[in-house]
Amino acid sequence: MTQYIYNFGGGRADGNASQKNLLGGKGANLAEMAILGLPVPSGFTISTECCNDYFRAGGKLPDALYAELDAAMLKIEQFMGKKFGDPKNPLLVSSRSGARSSMPGMMETVLNVGLCSATIPGLIEQTGNPWFVYDAYRRLIMMYSDVVMEKAEGVEPKDGMGIRLHLDMMLNDLKNDRGYASDAEITAKEMSALCDKFKRKIVEHLGVEFPDDPREQLLGSIGAVFKSWNGKRAVSYRRIEHIPDTWGTAVNVQSMVFGNMGETSATGVAFTRNPATGANIFYGEWLPNAQGEDVVAGIRTPNPLNNDTKSDHNAHLPSLEEAMPEIYKELAHIRTTLENHYRDMQDIEFTIEQGELYMLQCRVGKRTGTAALNMAMDMLEEGLIDEPTMVNRLNPTQLDEMLHPVVDPDAAKSAEVLVNGLPAGPGGACGQIVFTSEDAVYWKKKGKAVILVREETNPEDIEGMRAAKGILTARGGMTSHAALVARGWGKCCIVGAGALKIRADLKELHVVSAGGVGSGSGSSGAKIYKEGDFLTLNGTTGIAYAGKLKMKDATANPKFKQFMSIADKYRVLKVRANAETPKDAAQALEFGAEGIGLFRTEHMFYGVDSEKPLFLLRKVILSKTPHERQMALDELYPFIKKEMKGTLEIMDTKPVTFRLLDPPLHEFVPHSRETQEELSKELGIDIEEIQKRSQALEEVNPMMGHRGVRLGITFPEITRMQFKAIFEASAELIKAGKNPLPEIMVPVTCNEKELIFTKKLCDQVYEDVIKEFKSCSGDQIASIPHQFGTMIEVPRAALMSHKMAEHAEFFSFGTNDLTQMTFGFSRDDIGSFMNDYIDNAILDADPFATLDQEAVGSLIEISVKKGRETRPNIKLGICGEHGGDPASIEFCHKVGLTYVSCSPYRVPVARLAAAQAAINYKIDRY
Amino acid sequence: MTQYIYNFGGGRADGNASQKNLLGGKGANLAEMAILGLPVPSGFTISTECCNDYFRAGGKLPDALYAELDAAMLKIEQFMGKKFGDPKNPLLVSSRSGARSSMPGMMETVLNVGLCSATIPGLIEQTGNPWFVYDAYRRLIMMYSDVVMEKAEGVEPKDGMGIRLHLDMMLNDLKNDRGYASDAEITAKEMSALCDKFKRKIVEHLGVEFPDDPREQLLGSIGAVFKSWNGKRAVSYRRIEHIPDTWGTAVNVQSMVFGNMGETSATGVAFTRNPATGANIFYGEWLPNAQGEDVVAGIRTPNPLNNDTKSDHNAHLPSLEEAMPEIYKELAHIRTTLENHYRDMQDIEFTIEQGELYMLQCRVGKRTGTAALNMAMDMLEEGLIDEPTMVNRLNPTQLDEMLHPVVDPDAAKSAEVLVNGLPAGPGGACGQIVFTSEDAVYWKKKGKAVILVREETNPEDIEGMRAAKGILTARGGMTSHAALVARGWGKCCIVGAGALKIRADLKELHVVSAGGVGSGSGSSGAKIYKEGDFLTLNGTTGIAYAGKLKMKDATANPKFKQFMSIADKYRVLKVRANAETPKDAAQALEFGAEGIGLFRTEHMFYGVDSEKPLFLLRKVILSKTPHERQMALDELYPFIKKEMKGTLEIMDTKPVTFRLLDPPLHEFVPHSRETQEELSKELGIDIEEIQKRSQALEEVNPMMGHRGVRLGITFPEITRMQFKAIFEASAELIKAGKNPLPEIMVPVTCNEKELIFTKKLCDQVYEDVIKEFKSCSGDQIASIPHQFGTMIEVPRAALMSHKMAEHAEFFSFGTNDLTQMTFGFSRDDIGSFMNDYIDNAILDADPFATLDQEAVGSLIEISVKKGRETRPNIKLGICGEHGGDPASIEFCHKVGLTYVSCSPYRVPVARLAAAQAAINYKIDRY
Repeated sequence: MTQYIYNFGGGRADGNASQKNLLGGKGANLAEMAILGLPVPSGFTISTECCNDYFRAGGKLPDALYAELDAAMLKIEQFMGKKFGDPKNPLLVSSRSGARSSMPGMMETVLNVGLCSATIPGLIEQTGNPWFVYDAYRRLIMMYSDVVMEKAEGVEPKDGMGIRLHLDMMLNDLKNDRGYASDAEITAKEMSALCDKFKRKIVEHLGVEFPDDPREQLLGSIGAVFKSWNGKRAVSYRRIEHIPDTWGTAVNVQSMVFGNMGETSATGVAFTRNPATGANIFYGEWLPNAQGEDVVAGIRTPNPLNNDTKSDHNAHLPSLEEAMPEIYKELAHIRTTLENHYRDMQDIEFTIEQGELYMLQCRVGKRTGTAALNMAMDMLEEGLIDEPTMVNRLNPTQLDEMLHPVVDPDAAKSAEVLVNGLPAGPGGACGQIVFTSEDAVYWKKKGKAVILVREETNPEDIEGMRAAKGILTARGGMTSHAALVARGWGKCCIVGAGALKIRADLKELHVVSAGGVGSGSGSSGAKIYKEGDFLTLNGTTGIAYAGKLKMKDATANPKFKQFMSIADKYRVLKVRANAETPKDAAQALEFGAEGIGLFRTEHMFYGVDSEKPLFLLRKVILSKTPHERQMALDELYPFIKKEMKGTLEIMDTKPVTFRLLDPPLHEFVPHSRETQEELSKELGIDIEEIQKRSQALEEVNPMMGHRGVRLGITFPEITRMQFKAIFEASAELIKAGKNPLPEIMVPVTCNEKELIFTKKLCDQVYEDVIKEFKSCSGDQIASIPHQFGTMIEVPRAALMSHKMAEHAEFFSFGTNDLTQMTFGFSRDDIGSFMNDYIDNAILDADPFATLDQEAVGSLIEISVKKGRETRPNIKLGICGEHGGDPASIEFCHKVGLTYVSCSPYRVPVARLAAAQAAINYKIDRY
Repeated sequence: MTQYIYNFGGGRADGNASQKNLLGGKGANLAEMAILGLPVPSGFTISTECCNDYFRAGGKLPDALYAELDAAMLKIEQFMGKKFGDPKNPLLVSSRSGARSSMPGMMETVLNVGLCSATIPGLIEQTGNPWFVYDAYRRLIMMYSDVVMEKAEGVEPKDGMGIRLHLDMMLNDLKNDRGYASDAEITAKEMSALCDKFKRKIVEHLGVEFPDDPREQLLGSIGAVFKSWNGKRAVSYRRIEHIPDTWGTAVNVQSMVFGNMGETSATGVAFTRNPATGANIFYGEWLPNAQGEDVVAGIRTPNPLNNDTKSDHNAHLPSLEEAMPEIYKELAHIRTTLENHYRDMQDIEFTIEQGELYMLQCRVGKRTGTAALNMAMDMLEEGLIDEPTMVNRLNPTQLDEMLHPVVDPDAAKSAEVLVNGLPAGPGGACGQIVFTSEDAVYWKKKGKAVILVREETNPEDIEGMRAAKGILTARGGMTSHAALVARGWGKCCIVGAGALKIRADLKELHVVSAGGVGSGSGSSGAKIYKEGDFLTLNGTTGIAYAGKLKMKDATANPKFKQFMSIADKYRVLKVRANAETPKDAAQALEFGAEGIGLFRTEHMFYGVDSEKPLFLLRKVILSKTPHERQMALDELYPFIKKEMKGTLEIMDTKPVTFRLLDPPLHEFVPHSRETQEELSKELGIDIEEIQKRSQALEEVNPMMGHRGVRLGITFPEITRMQFKAIFEASAELIKAGKNPLPEIMVPVTCNEKELIFTKKLCDQVYEDVIKEFKSCSGDQIASIPHQFGTMIEVPRAALMSHKMAEHAEFFSFGTNDLTQMTFGFSRDDIGSFMNDYIDNAILDADPFATLDQEAVGSLIEISVKKGRETRPNIKLGICGEHGGDPASIEFCHKVGLTYVSCSPYRVPVARLAAAQAAINYKIDRY
């Protein structure tokens, strides 16, 4: 027969910490603490299996449970020296939920179970505190009638109001009638009378009597906790957190202890180390004569646990160390016991009842990134944990905060939230609003810090984006122009803040609430901010604040490099960076990049300090005859070569993957009258003609239009120019004794013949350059080592990988586009429906942020398999935005890629995620 | 040892007609005719294997060939009683190419091989016609120096001019000097002198002597024919026709016979039945005293073969039947022999040399669609062929011409081509140019036939498109708005005619030549057509002509229905039609549709006669509040229900698949000031607000934007309205004793949860309708039979088909979108690069016209497999444009789909293609 109940208390327990699946997190840790001999109020856990059986039986406790329950209660009574339902010395218990993983506040709790007309007098006599007893009874009635009698029974409130609301109103009426400010002013007699009134209301409202039998209360509360597993809130939470419905919850029935029974009673929470800094000190807060929820509620300022915890706010209050030194010593000992046992920082809850310490909970404590890093390194040094464990202790995304200055969290608490957007560029930034790129540059020259606010950005905004401390846009997603540029630079940026209406004409920013379809309306009732007003952006959370907020300088932790070098020992995946200037490449190297996995030729045009290259590219694009075009290409050539050469030089001996010009030409077409006029002058044609040529390049769906390799097939001269730049830059470096390793990557391919076509151009230019460098400088350059490969970013290319691999020495998965085309989602347009998709749980996550492993992943797996069938040693990488996402990196490790590539500031994140993947998933590498 | 040479002649042959792979089509049929005892000039075929060995050896005839060649020549000499190189009685031969499948004019031929200084006198003596002999020698020199000495040797012409051009100029100079109008006026002596001049020019130009040795000439001509397999023209042709390079060509060496040796000589071509009508008469033309090319060249009007072939043009000329009754009788007998043998209509070439009949070629004859149908039915009746053979005799695309009036091909020959575009809507149309929808309607009312010319069309042009005889657009592809609408109506339409510049403002049409990048320039030097000018469109070829061309009325062939019903017996795939009005559905039924596979709710808005529904849809779209929207939906509802009900009624007992609203709402937004004003009045908001709301709906990549099921998730009220219309229409029909079979299809899904969401809405509305129809009319409607399914048109949906099939009772492959997303090709934008892709052989065909079986096909196969794993009896269809393409239909049959769906006018094509697929590919059906 299945055992449903697992007792704990008195130095022993039926279960232990390893049984979280069966006992839930709370129950397993209570059992473990009991085994460790810690003072846990005696109790038992009813298993998650019982929960599943409960639902299987249609919401009925299994018959076999009853006998076990009686035996378990008997054990509690024995340990506690009290008796459930006893008129003289009654035992009270709580029924609390506890799932395998924490679902805070999502399920129900019933306290003070066992209080009834029979036990109240005895408890009054025992405690000498009738108010305390009636208040406890009041709480039981309120919780029980709500949770057990109404919700668990599925009673639809007659008048639309739940019983809880009725009782709350009655309690408030009483206080109003009497002019009381708090519950404490209610007399015991009044409280007792209120309990009677409550019970009458319950009969009236629910049609049943409040149960006066302790056993009935106990069974009711157990069933109600189980039932709350399928409550609305819990189900929604599980959807979001991907917790399976089949896990079920355990119920923990535990004898009640009270921290509010006088001056020798207290309650508190503590962390075994400082969760903010990681410092190895005991850190916590407590309140004398109080209940657990009082600490959390924040009505009273909690006392410091000890001297180490004292701060400006609480230094005047006595610490537990000072007030109850013996108890504190006992607690400090428990801290050591728990840390040695769990080998990780613990978050604990305790209650002191009339001088007696009880442990109510322990679990792994949440911590900041810095704390996580410091603790992990300390514990490694202390011999508590080994290296793989240490590497796993830091969530890769927590590295972010160590690499950028951040908004001071304390300052943020009291600040006015302006708007919520998408966290596109990390860190914090504070400055004055400007609305144009020109103004940003101008204000910066005057020594001001500015925040550039735009509807959305385009390449013409680059100068202003460079000049700004932070960027805020009303439109665009995580992979919009602003987001890509900002992330590449590691610049603070918030995009897609839809509640903003930007009136650049008026130099005003209106903040409105969201409208319906076609919501392009005016901004009546909006808050208005003007040029020069201060804003603070938190690019890590996507929240923009009004005004100037304090920033925290997050200088690199000295332990950071040491931690990363240990992580690197375990890593299998290589990590490269996406960069297109020598400056960015240098930054990437500093963060540990092992190559450039994506040099986007077109990014150069908005990455460099001069506007000249962009102007020349526009000339190329708007040229009409091949002759005009070749002239413009010749002018553009030195700029391209310079950036390529500089990047190859910086990355010496490390590979640099050059992606050929990719985006629709129309993206670079000039929209401003000024630039149009300048081009008109340069090209010697009138401005109407410039506008006409620009219009001719417009496309209905540019993302699936004339771009990538398609440009190189219609305009081979543009591709040839790039090959020439790559090979001449390399040849010059080789002559200078360097070791450039260029890799040529063809974008947006769908067909092996596109590769054949492009490879032929490449080979021709290569031969020309080799000849040229032979003839002018003797015989020193026999060859330029290079590789030729392709992006896999179109579904067809993935499906045809056996053919693509015939001509490509490497594949790089462009998961941004692959996601767009696999889903049929334009990343620029998902704003209109993505929220509804997430809200309705149709998608678990934005697939542009985290790789869709099911379908996009299956295309990658097909591609890897087919590619290797043709070319067993093919090099495989990923260079989409997902290259910096830990979950996606784990996937890349599992499918056996060679490297991931991400923006420079994500390189440490990727290194750590790759190390953790290698530790947690051993795979057979090809 | 491999046998390279296969002799034929004298009633026997080494090869036969089944050996086309080895002997080429020409050689195999020559052998077959020889075996049949027909008078074939003796000769031999050098096999395609020899061709491959020739290239394998780097362009050298295999050593083993020489001995075989000598033996083979000896046999010809014996049969012909002449000797190769003999001064008295010389044998002349021809060397002709002949590949497995016909490549007309793509490879080389050398005639009169064996003429040299040694044999000329003997031949003159034999023929008594020195002019004839020197003219033959002149031809040999011109052909041989060009084909063998220059091209095959890869000689680059020194002065950029080939030898052929030089010799042509010399011949012309001679005629000009003498004032001769034709070659015939040149004297024998002059001709002889010209030959000598030719030979000197050859030495001067090519640096080698013209060979005077017959054997050298023979070997040279054989090598040159082989070499021409890899000539530029032949290679390009093979790319286009998908002929593998490995096939190689055979060489046919055959003794020369001359039809120009006097009045008892002649030459002719004939078909064993009439290739235009299929009538069972012997049909052909001949010329006395002439060579083969004279018949083809069209300089002289050829004589009719017999009385049956006489026409207005040639009735005055003697027929062969009259001129040479014995020879004609012999030829008529051969006709019967060939038809009984090949059991198909043959295209033959013959030469009569001094009263002796020779057969030079026979092959299966090309024929019109009508002829193919009639012949096939006749031959079935005659017992020549069986039913499956008959069904295979008609190319499905040939059915097109039987269903639409067409441009008279004779008229087209001499007409001025205005522009080439894409053949978007079938048949022909002739009318006067108009530039706006309004004008089209107005002119039509005045009784004029008009051609509507537009940059591209949109829903606002519907009235004008209806009114026009034909539609011509400058932009858009085969699946653009104009193409889809026109094809749906079976209306003549040409789209994407890029050389047109349409100045609707001036009511002018400019035809220009293509420019470079950004070619949006003016139209200097363009031809200009104005409103009211006549145009003729051939929608089947995509050619537009200036002026009024004669049309041919192609009324339905009486044998058509009989033919189709025999084809249907063999068909396995069901054929449905895409239609969204009762009228179109009726048309589809008439063409044999077995259901509606695609009822596009949004097409209704431009398919009906009133503008009201479109106006109401615009109201829905531009509504801002849910209340406004619901009001507009309520107004729209009756229109939607009416079309749905009418279609269900017409299709009674046959399924109708309703696709929920699919396209981006922005497509329906009003662009004309007039409509905007009207909407502004109706909605009670100002016009600027209307414009703002419209702009807010604009998307960067609408094809991957807010459309399909995504609309239904953000605006469930729009989906609910459609469900209500479907179920209420069905319920009303059931009440009236009908049997509607609605199927609900969800578009643009990528995720099973989208189906769960939509199914829930569907079930709710279904229950409501069932309840409603129960309560108001007793208990007669217990249920409405219906199915719930999804399009598979997003790659992710295909990859996730195991999940999709959990909720979908059927899949319908939307191969238009699936192709777009699998390739990353926007069908609206491929114009800028598709030509370069085809020209560079990167793609064999436009994947929107013929299904890409490799990759898109593999997604379909994955989907079929995964879908059936979950739901073995899942219904599978295709409703993209490919549903009417024969090659794609064959693919659908092979992967085991249930049905294809195409526009009504394609239904017969699809039925025939499906029947042929079933006959040619037996598959295990699920």
